[in-house]
Amino acid sequence: MVQYVGVGNVIELVKSIGIETFLLGLAEYIEDDFRRWNAFEKTPRLASHSKTGVIELMPTSDGEHYGFKYVNGHPTNPNVGLQTVTAFGVLSDVSTGYPCLVSEMTIMTGLRTAATSALAAKYLARPDARSMAIIGLGAQSEFQALAFRALLGVKRLQVFDIDIEAADKFLKNLADMDFDIVVAKTAEEAVAGADIITTVTADKRNATILSDNMVGAGVHINAVGGDCPGKTELQGDILRRADVFVEYPEQTRIEGEIQQMAPDFPVTELWQVITGDAEGRRSNGQITIFDSVGFATEDFSALRFLRDKIQGTAFYTELDLTTQPAHPRDLYGLFRQQPAAPAERSAA
Amino acid sequence: MVQYVGVGNVIELVKSIGIETFLLGLAEYIEDDFRRWNAFEKTPRLASHSKTGVIELMPTSDGEHYGFKYVNGHPTNPNVGLQTVTAFGVLSDVSTGYPCLVSEMTIMTGLRTAATSALAAKYLARPDARSMAIIGLGAQSEFQALAFRALLGVKRLQVFDIDIEAADKFLKNLADMDFDIVVAKTAEEAVAGADIITTVTADKRNATILSDNMVGAGVHINAVGGDCPGKTELQGDILRRADVFVEYPEQTRIEGEIQQMAPDFPVTELWQVITGDAEGRRSNGQITIFDSVGFATEDFSALRFLRDKIQGTAFYTELDLTTQPAHPRDLYGLFRQQPAAPAERSAA
Repeated sequence: MVQYVGVGNVIELVKSIGIETFLLGLAEYIEDDFRRWNAFEKTPRLASHSKTGVIELMPTSDGEHYGFKYVNGHPTNPNVGLQTVTAFGVLSDVSTGYPCLVSEMTIMTGLRTAATSALAAKYLARPDARSMAIIGLGAQSEFQALAFRALLGVKRLQVFDIDIEAADKFLKNLADMDFDIVVAKTAEEAVAGADIITTVTADKRNATILSDNMVGAGVHINAVGGDCPGKTELQGDILRRADVFVEYPEQTRIEGEIQQMAPDFPVTELWQVITGDAEGRRSNGQITIFDSVGFATEDFSALRFLRDKIQGTAFYTELDLTTQPAHPRDLYGLFRQQPAAPAERSAA
Repeated sequence: MVQYVGVGNVIELVKSIGIETFLLGLAEYIEDDFRRWNAFEKTPRLASHSKTGVIELMPTSDGEHYGFKYVNGHPTNPNVGLQTVTAFGVLSDVSTGYPCLVSEMTIMTGLRTAATSALAAKYLARPDARSMAIIGLGAQSEFQALAFRALLGVKRLQVFDIDIEAADKFLKNLADMDFDIVVAKTAEEAVAGADIITTVTADKRNATILSDNMVGAGVHINAVGGDCPGKTELQGDILRRADVFVEYPEQTRIEGEIQQMAPDFPVTELWQVITGDAEGRRSNGQITIFDSVGFATEDFSALRFLRDKIQGTAFYTELDLTTQPAHPRDLYGLFRQQPAAPAERSAA
């Protein structure tokens, strides 16, 4: 049997642990896996493009476990009431090839993206950073806010979205969470005085969410929204003034903010900052950018964390996704066995 | 919600339809998809190799649906009571990127492989072929026998395995199925006089299951077991005397019997025989070989068939693998909703 964690159980599990505690634990798993970066098999995403969007498979392995995420990106989905991005993931045992966990990953991706952002900021933002601007108040914004408070103690949020309803949603969702939130009228107003700037808009084109004159010395920019070819948020001049940190350069040069720059534009890999092989922030005046696009190892960390967290809880069910014939060669024999009771058959 | 068909329900569905009727229907879907071969996006498998085996993702799309199969191959798994090969598959809607079906595919792979074999033989074997030798009586053998009877009317089976227990299992499984089965003492004895020869051994090396002197004029060879690098069953001389038909040459030249031959060894693509663009059997004396390795479109056909067959039946359950927030941008709002009743949450 394969353990299964659907949307309902992910939500209940996170609530039972507390979302900030969950994010802290998740960030630890992500950090551990970045620390052993060279243990991972790294493959570009396998993408299938269509007129309306893309479906991708993102596999990786550390030699002990194999994991992959299925994720789509369909910008017009909200027009029919669907999510732009949905995802699910699978974790397997490399030694037998058997899957051991199937999980929803739409919510888990929001959580792991936020945990990765905050983890990067822990290494790259000024140690005294306590305020953050968030530009773009869509599906990921609350997770970002909660992860930055959990990992860095950021309580002051200066937020902006071109859609005022998105701001209302954000305020409502975080109402009782003891944040100090200011809804700005413009992006310029939102970033003024903020120690950290998170850009996480959904705009599917090369937009200028952040222009050079808006970025002061010492700021850390968490650039989350520029994550596929043709989709960027930062003016190129900012990249030139800053030091840019990335997950996996081969992927980020295609999908990230640095797709605007020359192929040899200098970047530092985040895992090297975490292991101490490269320097993170060097001075209070330096501008740092985490050009985040999301990488397969982060999903792997999330699946590993989820699997560890559900053991001994009621927050999973089981799927009969693998066969258990009496003898491995007797697959057909399954047709000759008595059928299981209906309750058992549909147990999942 | 995503429809889910586990091992239990696949077995009950197949039994409710009747396995030979199921194989006939499945073969029709496979034939339809071969007929529109150029509509498919064809990608090599994405493989992750380890010391003990391989885990592969096999995606394809026809522009309307996207499907992929997860499949492992671990030769030493039977030593610990596990299957060498397990698999599951997912079918999605290309227009939204949302998954619509998750299914076990260990049994479905056995069925689709057999249906593809019999479909190829329908085009390549002599029309009067009624007897078949089967060499290798492992997990796939009964499915092969049933598919060849369903599609070609083959009732006489001359079978052989180096392991006598495998032969006992085969006889027991097909005992009440009105076959005329002879268990041979050698592979030579099994193939003597057979119109069709199916080789489906599990030996993980370049073996000579069939040597040139064993193969008479007019025979059709269904070569199923040679399906990965370093694993073949036929002596090269047989390939030189015969006409060889394949699913997808790019893949078969690496994985199939023809991995023994030069890169330009002539082959005919099965889909072209099905559409009439290429000739199949030309004479009664010709030796034809279907060098089968299994291709992603066959899994796609199987998922499509399964999906159509379960509608309106009790042979599936539902998984909460995708989110349904009140508003697409309000993913976090799911944490603020009342939890569903436990029964609903664990429904799967």
